[in-house]
Amino acid sequence: MASIFTKIIEGEIPSHKIAEDHKFIAFLDINPNAKGHTLCVPKEEVDKVFDLGEQDYLQLMQFSRNVAKALEKTIDCKRIGMSVIGLEVPHVHVHLIPISEMKDMTFQHKVEMSQEELASLAEDIAKNF
Amino acid sequence: MASIFTKIIEGEIPSHKIAEDHKFIAFLDINPNAKGHTLCVPKEEVDKVFDLGEQDYLQLMQFSRNVAKALEKTIDCKRIGMSVIGLEVPHVHVHLIPISEMKDMTFQHKVEMSQEELASLAEDIAKNF
Repeated sequence: MASIFTKIIEGEIPSHKIAEDHKFIAFLDINPNAKGHTLCVPKEEVDKVFDLGEQDYLQLMQFSRNVAKALEKTIDCKRIGMSVIGLEVPHVHVHLIPISEMKDMTFQHKVEMSQEELASLAEDIAKNF
Repeated sequence: MASIFTKIIEGEIPSHKIAEDHKFIAFLDINPNAKGHTLCVPKEEVDKVFDLGEQDYLQLMQFSRNVAKALEKTIDCKRIGMSVIGLEVPHVHVHLIPISEMKDMTFQHKVEMSQEELASLAEDIAKNF
């Protein structure tokens, strides 16, 4: 069965997209740790990040860096945190999180944002990509 | 003032080293989230990971992938998590954490390991690097 991220990539499930090329996509996490929390996902459905081939892995990291730079330009924060976990969705995803304090990286505190706020924020970040 | 990681790189502070080349070093975190929690650090003292030049950043990610592969071979876990935060030590460090459940990635649960256990584990991981 296609992962939820594959369904987003294929447009079956809507997302607040920030960037996309032929291999990767970036969109806002709908249950964000902090404002601007973004997921960078390879279109190929691989479970574990270190199982990606070296070139695919490095390209994902390069894509994620470009997205992080756009987040830095858009969101007021101390820095952009990065996390790859993957215990819930078996499709590689790099979390990029604009952080100001440690709790923004624990995945135990969430911020509420409306669909309208997410859509507007994604548009602002995309302009800086 | 030199960061604590620069002091480790220069040998002023001892560490349980796993791997080292001319640009990067990997050693065990002495306050691990989980057994095998490792830090990958560039020898150049830069605060934020996305402020590294693109090539230095990609080389750090490549080095981290190689260390993660050695961790996978050595430690019984579900996968290797990766996290870059940096709110405490202003010197880039990639956390690689052998994880089995989400709490291993929250930085709020720690495992106690003796210096002897850390030394022995570092040696085992280094053999698989």
